[in-house]
Amino acid sequence: MITVEAARKLVFETTRDFGIESVDLMESVGRILRESLIADRDFPPYDRVTMDGIAIRFKDFEKGNRRFKITGVGPAGEPQKELTKTDTCLEIMTGASLPIGSDTIIRYEDVQVENGYATITVDKVRAGQNVHGKGSDRPQGSELLLSGYQINAAAIGVAATIGKVQLKVSKLPKVIIISTGDELVKVAAKPLPHQIRKSNVFQLSAGLKHLGIKADQRHLKDDLAEIKEVLKTILKEYDVVFLSGGVSKGKFDFLPEAMDQLGVEKLFHKIKQRPGKPFWFGQYESDGATVFAFPGNPVSSFMCAQIYGMPWLKKCMGYSDLEHKFAKLTGPIHFKPDLTYFAQVKISTSQTGELLATPIEGNGSGDLANLVSANAFLEVPRGKDIFETGTILPFLEIV
Amino acid sequence: MITVEAARKLVFETTRDFGIESVDLMESVGRILRESLIADRDFPPYDRVTMDGIAIRFKDFEKGNRRFKITGVGPAGEPQKELTKTDTCLEIMTGASLPIGSDTIIRYEDVQVENGYATITVDKVRAGQNVHGKGSDRPQGSELLLSGYQINAAAIGVAATIGKVQLKVSKLPKVIIISTGDELVKVAAKPLPHQIRKSNVFQLSAGLKHLGIKADQRHLKDDLAEIKEVLKTILKEYDVVFLSGGVSKGKFDFLPEAMDQLGVEKLFHKIKQRPGKPFWFGQYESDGATVFAFPGNPVSSFMCAQIYGMPWLKKCMGYSDLEHKFAKLTGPIHFKPDLTYFAQVKISTSQTGELLATPIEGNGSGDLANLVSANAFLEVPRGKDIFETGTILPFLEIV
Repeated sequence: MITVEAARKLVFETTRDFGIESVDLMESVGRILRESLIADRDFPPYDRVTMDGIAIRFKDFEKGNRRFKITGVGPAGEPQKELTKTDTCLEIMTGASLPIGSDTIIRYEDVQVENGYATITVDKVRAGQNVHGKGSDRPQGSELLLSGYQINAAAIGVAATIGKVQLKVSKLPKVIIISTGDELVKVAAKPLPHQIRKSNVFQLSAGLKHLGIKADQRHLKDDLAEIKEVLKTILKEYDVVFLSGGVSKGKFDFLPEAMDQLGVEKLFHKIKQRPGKPFWFGQYESDGATVFAFPGNPVSSFMCAQIYGMPWLKKCMGYSDLEHKFAKLTGPIHFKPDLTYFAQVKISTSQTGELLATPIEGNGSGDLANLVSANAFLEVPRGKDIFETGTILPFLEIV
Repeated sequence: MITVEAARKLVFETTRDFGIESVDLMESVGRILRESLIADRDFPPYDRVTMDGIAIRFKDFEKGNRRFKITGVGPAGEPQKELTKTDTCLEIMTGASLPIGSDTIIRYEDVQVENGYATITVDKVRAGQNVHGKGSDRPQGSELLLSGYQINAAAIGVAATIGKVQLKVSKLPKVIIISTGDELVKVAAKPLPHQIRKSNVFQLSAGLKHLGIKADQRHLKDDLAEIKEVLKTILKEYDVVFLSGGVSKGKFDFLPEAMDQLGVEKLFHKIKQRPGKPFWFGQYESDGATVFAFPGNPVSSFMCAQIYGMPWLKKCMGYSDLEHKFAKLTGPIHFKPDLTYFAQVKISTSQTGELLATPIEGNGSGDLANLVSANAFLEVPRGKDIFETGTILPFLEIV
């Protein structure tokens, strides 16, 4: 039995890059960018007018003129206009290119337009005002976004601006989730008294959906021959296998044995933690499937997926938000066993900018219904029994 | 021009329920639950064995017996067994039903099995140990999840357990995003010097994707007749219209006029805020489209969508995470105008459990490229010019 720290290290050591693929712009939301986005033009690409009003030469204003003959109108989307004569102006719209020969925009609010003339009604005018200078945000050729960025709405805006109809992103791994346990029946079924419906596979599948992964599903009977037969192919066809159940000391917990016989290298079995102690983890050849065999208890399976499985997938794909955050306990935690305790907590924020962790009471690893009240697992370290209110501890958010 | 507080109030006053629909279990991830989930059986549904080992009568142990004849094996998934004779035991597996006549489980680790007998090797045994009592988590008929819950992996697990193949969730509104501005060209196009590519519609669309909404898209020329003609139908066909551009003082900013002529009630035009001052908001009849006409600047459009549009949609659909959070400034903010300032910040967390807001310098409402560095808008109130390092201010996360 190894420590959480050692388990985490072994898990992260097997991470690998699943490669890169190109997807359509709108399909890339939430994915991890795998190319740099470079400004194809200056940002903005021309001296951009930022207020509706008139374009003038500042020199004309400076020498005292306030009344300007209007020689035309410049809407956005038309080729750049030109101001040819002194003491004239052009009406100009937000988004338009600053007319040649002009340098300053007076907004309509500060101008009176009458009989083809615009009269400036304010005394304070700054040379170059209301113009967003060509290249002043980012010059052409500059890096707007780096590889590794998780694509959000702002990134989509940047990509569209530079003409990217497709983006290179981290490929999603091929994942299968396998339930085991002869007591399990389909969701649509009416279970007999000694049966329960499958839930872990759906729970795990829902978690993966947050990473954009659509996992396949399969059920295996508690039968060594069948398990071996089916896994033999799966280990070659998938990047990742999530298993649920079959890893404890029971007479029908065949998974460790099956893995051994199939040549999957066991990296560890059992962690000094609660819940999720019987978690089995291994690797099939160097580029075959990575196998996460979670305990069958719903809370154990869920916790191991959230603490080890999802971070592993995120690291493979290049997510950068893998660090624990820290929160302050709003109530004490008592925990005696010499195990790392992943306590179900509700993280909230205070009006003073603090992260607070409120322990959610539950009945242990079988209490599935309790999980819906928590939004994080607090990682309570070994070596101490009592954690008083106010103690600051690390947590990982549940997805 | 109204305050941010007044604008927010008017926006939220138009929220309405778009109704309820049933979707398949796995399609419901991320949606808002609109029914209560009730335990169809006890949780757990039977006295559930939680360790692999042997099932005994505690009375036998109490009276001094340590050696038990094994009369059978009870795997999970088989009908409940029975322990008929004193001083016998059944081998029993995790997930199985506690055999009739037994009450206590001794795990394999504390037992020696040899020649058909199991000998208990520990002195401490608690009556009823390693049994997860029928109904001890939740009794049949109890509410496991309430309407209004945002469906996550844990909720999917609960729903599967009680046999829900479909869930009732909040319907998604029908949304269209319309760009205006003759300077805009397609993403795939090579813009002329005075043109730019469309980006706001994609940015807005990406934001809506986080709510599960697939918005339609459309572009309108700066032409009053065309705008009116097209909007006439759209106002009846859609629940929500997001417009970008055409709401300032320009000669070709026809939207306010078009809205007025089409009978859309203007609830406000212009807010005392930066960016996003020219935001126009209205309602078409009581059950027609709600119109968010955002300013055309990329940052303004984005900020108004994040601060008003998305929270409005979330409130309509029943999301509960609409409150601001609070963070501590890591650097000062200087802002003179008598406007609420939505500062782009990067929110991070400290190892002491604090939320920190680091201002991201930018070039104002046109600086699209800067947005990718921020993950929240800090709401900096009016009435003060300088906010020192350490000041605690509210923020809304960017999606």
